[in-house]
Amino acid sequence: MIVNMLSTATPTEINHIIDRIKECGFQAHVIAGEERTIIGAVGSGGNRSEIEALRAAPGVAEVIQIAHPFKLVSRQLRQTRTIVDVRGTKIGGGDLVVIAGPCSVESEEQLMETALAVKAAGANMLRGGAYKPRTSPYDFQGLGVEALRFLAHARKETGLPIVTEVMSETDVDIVAEYADMLQVGARNMQNFSLLRKLAPVPKPILLKRGPSATVKEWLLAAEYLLAGGNGNVVLCERGIKTFETATRNTLDLAAVALVKELSHLPVLADPSHGTGLRSLIAPMSKAAAACGADGLIIEVHPCPERALSDGPQSLDLPGFQELMEELGRVPVREAKAA
Amino acid sequence: MIVNMLSTATPTEINHIIDRIKECGFQAHVIAGEERTIIGAVGSGGNRSEIEALRAAPGVAEVIQIAHPFKLVSRQLRQTRTIVDVRGTKIGGGDLVVIAGPCSVESEEQLMETALAVKAAGANMLRGGAYKPRTSPYDFQGLGVEALRFLAHARKETGLPIVTEVMSETDVDIVAEYADMLQVGARNMQNFSLLRKLAPVPKPILLKRGPSATVKEWLLAAEYLLAGGNGNVVLCERGIKTFETATRNTLDLAAVALVKELSHLPVLADPSHGTGLRSLIAPMSKAAAACGADGLIIEVHPCPERALSDGPQSLDLPGFQELMEELGRVPVREAKAA
Amino acid sequence: MIVNMLSTATPTEINHIIDRIKECGFQAHVIAGEERTIIGAVGSGGNRSEIEALRAAPGVAEVIQIAHPFKLVSRQLRQTRTIVDVRGTKIGGGDLVVIAGPCSVESEEQLMETALAVKAAGANMLRGGAYKPRTSPYDFQGLGVEALRFLAHARKETGLPIVTEVMSETDVDIVAEYADMLQVGARNMQNFSLLRKLAPVPKPILLKRGPSATVKEWLLAAEYLLAGGNGNVVLCERGIKTFETATRNTLDLAAVALVKELSHLPVLADPSHGTGLRSLIAPMSKAAAACGADGLIIEVHPCPERALSDGPQSLDLPGFQELMEELGRVPVREAKAA
Amino acid sequence: MIVNMLSTATPTEINHIIDRIKECGFQAHVIAGEERTIIGAVGSGGNRSEIEALRAAPGVAEVIQIAHPFKLVSRQLRQTRTIVDVRGTKIGGGDLVVIAGPCSVESEEQLMETALAVKAAGANMLRGGAYKPRTSPYDFQGLGVEALRFLAHARKETGLPIVTEVMSETDVDIVAEYADMLQVGARNMQNFSLLRKLAPVPKPILLKRGPSATVKEWLLAAEYLLAGGNGNVVLCERGIKTFETATRNTLDLAAVALVKELSHLPVLADPSHGTGLRSLIAPMSKAAAACGADGLIIEVHPCPERALSDGPQSLDLPGFQELMEELGRVPVREAKAA
Repeated sequence: MIVNMLSTATPTEINHIIDRIKECGFQAHVIAGEERTIIGAVGSGGNRSEIEALRAAPGVAEVIQIAHPFKLVSRQLRQTRTIVDVRGTKIGGGDLVVIAGPCSVESEEQLMETALAVKAAGANMLRGGAYKPRTSPYDFQGLGVEALRFLAHARKETGLPIVTEVMSETDVDIVAEYADMLQVGARNMQNFSLLRKLAPVPKPILLKRGPSATVKEWLLAAEYLLAGGNGNVVLCERGIKTFETATRNTLDLAAVALVKELSHLPVLADPSHGTGLRSLIAPMSKAAAACGADGLIIEVHPCPERALSDGPQSLDLPGFQELMEELGRVPVREAKAA
Repeated sequence: MIVNMLSTATPTEINHIIDRIKECGFQAHVIAGEERTIIGAVGSGGNRSEIEALRAAPGVAEVIQIAHPFKLVSRQLRQTRTIVDVRGTKIGGGDLVVIAGPCSVESEEQLMETALAVKAAGANMLRGGAYKPRTSPYDFQGLGVEALRFLAHARKETGLPIVTEVMSETDVDIVAEYADMLQVGARNMQNFSLLRKLAPVPKPILLKRGPSATVKEWLLAAEYLLAGGNGNVVLCERGIKTFETATRNTLDLAAVALVKELSHLPVLADPSHGTGLRSLIAPMSKAAAACGADGLIIEVHPCPERALSDGPQSLDLPGFQELMEELGRVPVREAKAA
Repeated sequence: MIVNMLSTATPTEINHIIDRIKECGFQAHVIAGEERTIIGAVGSGGNRSEIEALRAAPGVAEVIQIAHPFKLVSRQLRQTRTIVDVRGTKIGGGDLVVIAGPCSVESEEQLMETALAVKAAGANMLRGGAYKPRTSPYDFQGLGVEALRFLAHARKETGLPIVTEVMSETDVDIVAEYADMLQVGARNMQNFSLLRKLAPVPKPILLKRGPSATVKEWLLAAEYLLAGGNGNVVLCERGIKTFETATRNTLDLAAVALVKELSHLPVLADPSHGTGLRSLIAPMSKAAAACGADGLIIEVHPCPERALSDGPQSLDLPGFQELMEELGRVPVREAKAA
Repeated sequence: MIVNMLSTATPTEINHIIDRIKECGFQAHVIAGEERTIIGAVGSGGNRSEIEALRAAPGVAEVIQIAHPFKLVSRQLRQTRTIVDVRGTKIGGGDLVVIAGPCSVESEEQLMETALAVKAAGANMLRGGAYKPRTSPYDFQGLGVEALRFLAHARKETGLPIVTEVMSETDVDIVAEYADMLQVGARNMQNFSLLRKLAPVPKPILLKRGPSATVKEWLLAAEYLLAGGNGNVVLCERGIKTFETATRNTLDLAAVALVKELSHLPVLADPSHGTGLRSLIAPMSKAAAACGADGLIIEVHPCPERALSDGPQSLDLPGFQELMEELGRVPVREAKAA
């Protein structure tokens, strides 16, 4: 940590900071420049947040964090990549894992028709919402436990492991009973009570990036899970909120590549939420695969125009089949000879 | 709702949309332009989200929502302004209400010293965090129930009603037992499980705007509370996430003025979180008051540089006293004579 | 400047950085922590951008700038506030200056009617666009020199100094011949060729903040003008681009207060562009005045619904009169007694 | 265009809008709903911006644009894809075109060394800045005409066509004399004077997306060039400004795919500016190729740590060689068998 003093800081103010740094269990290294003084706080014995609070002290311009604030998720701590095993499907092991299914589970028929089709097209896992976080209270909120039962049945018929969102601490037990992987939705990425409740659950967690979360905040949310004992965390980039309205969100694929550098956890991309537009799902799926994503999560519905949620960003069954064919061999053009 | 067809839409595609609109309980009005056809879906008998899903149908360019999606929070429905009574303090009644106190309750002494000082300076309510949503799992997470007891004690000593955040559905009962108003934090604005759990609680709710929530999404989150039976909702603008890093967030005061147009609910501003910089708290407090905010919520700490959270955006006790004096009479300059 | 090394940096990499820092004319101060080494580059003899480039060297995690990169605009260099005199109207002298007029000059009648009305209502200066930067090439592009003549005539009739935008380097001379203050529009804030061309012009410059410019970038754009010899610069906050679409831009009033801390230059606010909504002009004008803006620039049109540009964010003549009355005495409520 | 009336609009207000729509040369279609009235303005005889201005009329809630505002750039108008021929290199013809070279031309040696190396590695064109738009006036501003001569010399030696930025209207002629394609930088995307000056130039234009430009605004900027007579426009996505600071910008690859849907113009991606981080250039280059970009523009420098600009986002010569090898065959993994 570095404390950057104002150019107007007095010797008394500077000494006060030095004293506080020592008091907090760090060593203080002073660099007196011509214009201003900066003070490094070095060591591992103290509490970093006490140093951060010194920004509130007289004479301080800013406190700069030098090290990344996350630990267990970091590749510095653990250099082998984590492979998350979801009932036999391995995420992070080098193969592109494709998770597909409807946004919401609407009926047993709708789910089973989708599950059979995505299985036939080569999907590795089935998704489907039982509890739905909806912006408006007047929109379809999900079938709840009934949907969980339909998902379990679809798993039995297809063999596909299932992932579904858990929105509420009080639903953690019931969702964990049915699902093979529990999803924390984007809006709940910093629902720390939910994260703490999920940490001891013996199932993998799919942690979506919040629409306004920086990569650092996202990794710190994952840190809650690892620090609480659950190392089976799969991250998922699903678009961030920006000024651009032509797409529903801005899919930040550079964040996928960056997280692969910073962390040992696997990372998926969600081109459905990431763009909100069906026609962009295929190109962005290919782009995600090309920049190192460990997998994709894609919304698929037998009849998108009658979907109770997210129809416009869902592929229909032939559309998904076609995408899977394209993904089998991405037609990359060679760089043109000069 | 208006369905805007692609210029390439075929008569079959257009007829399909007309049929679906009728099937969904609306009347269809077709406007055939030179370039393209648009179809209005009129009436109140149907389900709007079924029309929205038609964006997924062949030939459709987009579906445009015409009416605001919120109802109970809207001034169209209820033109009298809501006044929320928090143990006798009236928010929305025309007077500027000032809520002050530490970010986190750290000890009985720290809280009591702050409570007495803000009371003396003219604050109307006391704030203090018992359960803290922290970006990192390694930061101070709050004293929990113990802090609630300290808050209750401070209320007893000062007479100030207390507001504190509830982060978890499982804490709703205990927080409601102690607090006079329950705060939903920015990160939990779309924690719909928490909102549903709070709707039947017979206490006012302070609903902070999420860092990436549009005004529409914010009002729809409030709609969850009103639709669930709790009409005593106070909104709070606390800054949104933008590209600007000179301030912690971008305090969107125009949203305060806009919400006062759209809704009958009272609106506060939080210049501490909204800027992250102590020196900006006073000017932004005055600005918020000038554009119609019903009150302010301000972080105050006896020794900000030793605060366990948010020190840099907290006023110290004399700083708060000074701000209250300034707020007593905002020194507005007259427009200069030509 | 601080060079933060990776935890994996080798002694050779560290020594290389130390050598380069010395080579660039700085002294190197090494702080060897347990986890990583950081190296301060101290002194004023060298070129900062050479140190910044070291981020590209092996073993470097990041290069952190400690001092503000701007000089002449900074209050550190010059503590007295700059007062810009525009043909007798003083901006930055403590009085709130109000600049009003149509977005575009559309005809002599439209301009004169507006000019007389805003003068009567107490405005201090007249604005009006002669050259218009329009998103679409098919929209009205301004009357050009003819509009400049109308503006000069309106000045003669009303005595109001005039400000108008210059979009092109080749128009600088003609605009400078007519206008009392030349405006650089938001889209041109980083049109450095235009800034360089304006630096030697002996007229004050109104520099609008770009829609995606940080405060730092904005002040550096002003630095181009001051470094080129023109110290008569007035800054203007006009809203930044964010995810919120309910308003045209997000008016960042905290930036007004922050710039007053960082710089000696006067700062205006533009609530017309800042919100895009007529009903928000009055509350945001009052808010801007309350947080320390030196003035306002407001779009006014005799018949906004027939305006060739920006009608929806223009006040009509009675609306402006009413706002001026309100600004004469902002009705600030006293903080409610407990 | 649709005029959406307030639910409180009076019959007089509604009739006024109907009259104005007719007066502006459109037909008015009224849809009277239960809650509110909406009025369609249909036809092609009138001026759309006059209808837009009606948002300022009493009783109007909003005016909604139905058709895309751009014409000549649209695929609706022209379905064949534009292939831009830059001295024999075809952009948009199906092969991935790679443009490489230093951010700034710093010396003849630096440029020639880079040019020979990128040519050897398979690049199709050479980039290099002669006039540099720099945030700070104290940073290196480019060698100007001298750099143009070095570029011409490098072209002679390598056969690579050259692209370089033009920042100023007054430099258009000299840059057009040397360059094979003229770049409009991100900060100048809405410098409409520059665009108008470039429209008649008989050379292709590379139009970078502005950091806060929507796709619509970007295409409308291109429309200025096409409407002015220059159809040889190549678009380039280079990252937008968002809240994320881990990368310099947020590379919006979905915009690449979307623009390919909306327009017939070719689109490049710039992973150097798009991420600001050297290690992300390779993954994002592959991602851009996979989602349909027509080419890449990549910063390459013989010694990035001594670069006068953009070193941290430049590949060194072996790094570029390696990327070109990887691009020859993007190692896409097959979707994992279930």
